[in-house]
Amino acid sequence: MADKIRISLDAMGGDSGPEVVVPGAALALERRPDIAFSLYGNEQRLRPLLDAHPRLRDASEVFHCEVAVAMDTKPSQALRQGRWKSSMWRAIEAVKSDTADVAVSAGNTGALMAMSKFCLRTMANIERPAIAAIWPTARGESIVLDVGATIGADAQQLIDFALLGGAMARVLFSIERPTVGLLNIGVEEVKGLEEVRTAGRLLREANLKSLDYAGFVEGDDLGKGTVDVVVTEGFAGNIALKTAEGTAKQIGGYLRAAMNRTWRARLGYLLARDAFDRLREKMDPRKVNGGVFLGLNGIVIKSHGGTDAEGFASAVELAYDMARNDLMHKIGQDFMHYHRGRFGTRDGLEGDQ
Amino acid sequence: MADKIRISLDAMGGDSGPEVVVPGAALALERRPDIAFSLYGNEQRLRPLLDAHPRLRDASEVFHCEVAVAMDTKPSQALRQGRWKSSMWRAIEAVKSDTADVAVSAGNTGALMAMSKFCLRTMANIERPAIAAIWPTARGESIVLDVGATIGADAQQLIDFALLGGAMARVLFSIERPTVGLLNIGVEEVKGLEEVRTAGRLLREANLKSLDYAGFVEGDDLGKGTVDVVVTEGFAGNIALKTAEGTAKQIGGYLRAAMNRTWRARLGYLLARDAFDRLREKMDPRKVNGGVFLGLNGIVIKSHGGTDAEGFASAVELAYDMARNDLMHKIGQDFMHYHRGRFGTRDGLEGDQ
Repeated sequence: MADKIRISLDAMGGDSGPEVVVPGAALALERRPDIAFSLYGNEQRLRPLLDAHPRLRDASEVFHCEVAVAMDTKPSQALRQGRWKSSMWRAIEAVKSDTADVAVSAGNTGALMAMSKFCLRTMANIERPAIAAIWPTARGESIVLDVGATIGADAQQLIDFALLGGAMARVLFSIERPTVGLLNIGVEEVKGLEEVRTAGRLLREANLKSLDYAGFVEGDDLGKGTVDVVVTEGFAGNIALKTAEGTAKQIGGYLRAAMNRTWRARLGYLLARDAFDRLREKMDPRKVNGGVFLGLNGIVIKSHGGTDAEGFASAVELAYDMARNDLMHKIGQDFMHYHRGRFGTRDGLEGDQ
Repeated sequence: MADKIRISLDAMGGDSGPEVVVPGAALALERRPDIAFSLYGNEQRLRPLLDAHPRLRDASEVFHCEVAVAMDTKPSQALRQGRWKSSMWRAIEAVKSDTADVAVSAGNTGALMAMSKFCLRTMANIERPAIAAIWPTARGESIVLDVGATIGADAQQLIDFALLGGAMARVLFSIERPTVGLLNIGVEEVKGLEEVRTAGRLLREANLKSLDYAGFVEGDDLGKGTVDVVVTEGFAGNIALKTAEGTAKQIGGYLRAAMNRTWRARLGYLLARDAFDRLREKMDPRKVNGGVFLGLNGIVIKSHGGTDAEGFASAVELAYDMARNDLMHKIGQDFMHYHRGRFGTRDGLEGDQ
């Protein structure tokens, strides 16, 4: 059997901290037994929880940290107070020092991104990291990035996001050449943001082996799953993500109200209960929990702060899959090919002669 | 009884042209009998349709136009080919020449906006028009603008949109001081786009009588209906709108599939049929059909191109409501108060002494 995947956990992150992180990790370990965990956090709080999960305890090393980054701490403040010593920082640092393959935190997004950037730094050739979300669609799942790491992106940054998302799609969906679309308003080549149009032209010209550029997509293509990867800058991406979440909740509310209005509706609901359960499961946000920070020298997974053990487990499993399938290596390869294709290389030119 | 509301129709607009426009107008007339229509389009096609709706025929004047703007015509091309003479242009022109109070077209959005801008011009003090959408929410309806008239907006333009949307909310919802939020990522004052932060500060300082500035809202506040008016620039607004439409369709698809899987589910569906019908009606896009062009010297309503007679009727009724409640006058007042508040006036200053 292959080596274990080493996952570092910010055990204090999230609304409930260790009370969710520990049982969540235990659940993930049941389904992915080849994980070795490093838990960063308050040892006194962690020990009794680990004792309740002996298998996890045996697969874990605990590193005591005095400091935990609160959920409402501003990024700059988190860096000032939590650098070097907080559970969040040390979980990320484990990736940097190669004692972990990937880090997971349910701590606050801004602080986690600020620390990840500061600790891991962006990859060579990449100016800005992105947060990639997994988006449930009518035909399965897509990857959408950036959903809020930074505001605005120029054409080159959008191309970087396309390459990053493409590599993640190959890992997550096991497709050789995932389709990639640029989020825009209107699908005609003349429409929309200048940066998006330029990125589209360059992606088309580049004709990459690692991804299949499919042109512009619009907001309604997200739910349809028109492409495997949707690329956008962080402002529009974040608004799209939250709008979709809000719409799903809104319709769920309508449905509940409608099913409660008459006795016939209530009876119908009882009969169709399995169907409703399936629907609920399909829309369960816990199933696709985990934003992936891409573009840094290491992978960090952000779990929802308010999730439960099941949701945290799915973030851990996502982390596992990214590491097991060597996402960082694939990203490195894709960028190398892209830049080689753009500029040519002496070797390549000589070889052709 | 008050004067009739005069509505000009681009009878050739939309995927089906007169075949939807005429029966749609007839439906609207049943519910709003005090409308006088001017129909612009091919008289030969219109006459037989009008003969099938004698009440509408009696309330309509037909103006023959040789030219119709096709649904796939680019805005610049539409202007070149259709200015002065197309049914779309002439319906808009009727508002300019004050032979109509409001114009309705189901023609293509880009062409309709280009012609509306060229013909009606933006109002004094306003740099750019916006398209306002009516958004169904968990607590009723909100107004969202801009959903795609232009890309990007500086702080002053966002404030203009807030004033325009506020006036429309007073008309549509009969509220004296509608709440207005700025769409952003994160609700803290330090977050998000610079332009949005500046607009927020200025709106807070202005403390307007015509609207109640409620701070930043996020994508999920759209479906919740947190505020009466959500203000954003056109790129993010268009993506939010289409993302919500796509998500609603996606969930509808899940639901249909779930209800068809087993005989129990199918039976449950039959029993709860009324509830499902209510849900479908709540999500019916025809009920809120109509984008309102704001910021021009006259009101133009854009109906969905692919709508049916019922949907077109609701766009006509929206047009009616805007004109009957004198939206243009309210907008004028709000802008006057806003600018007077900012700069003071000699009269005002002298009066205070």
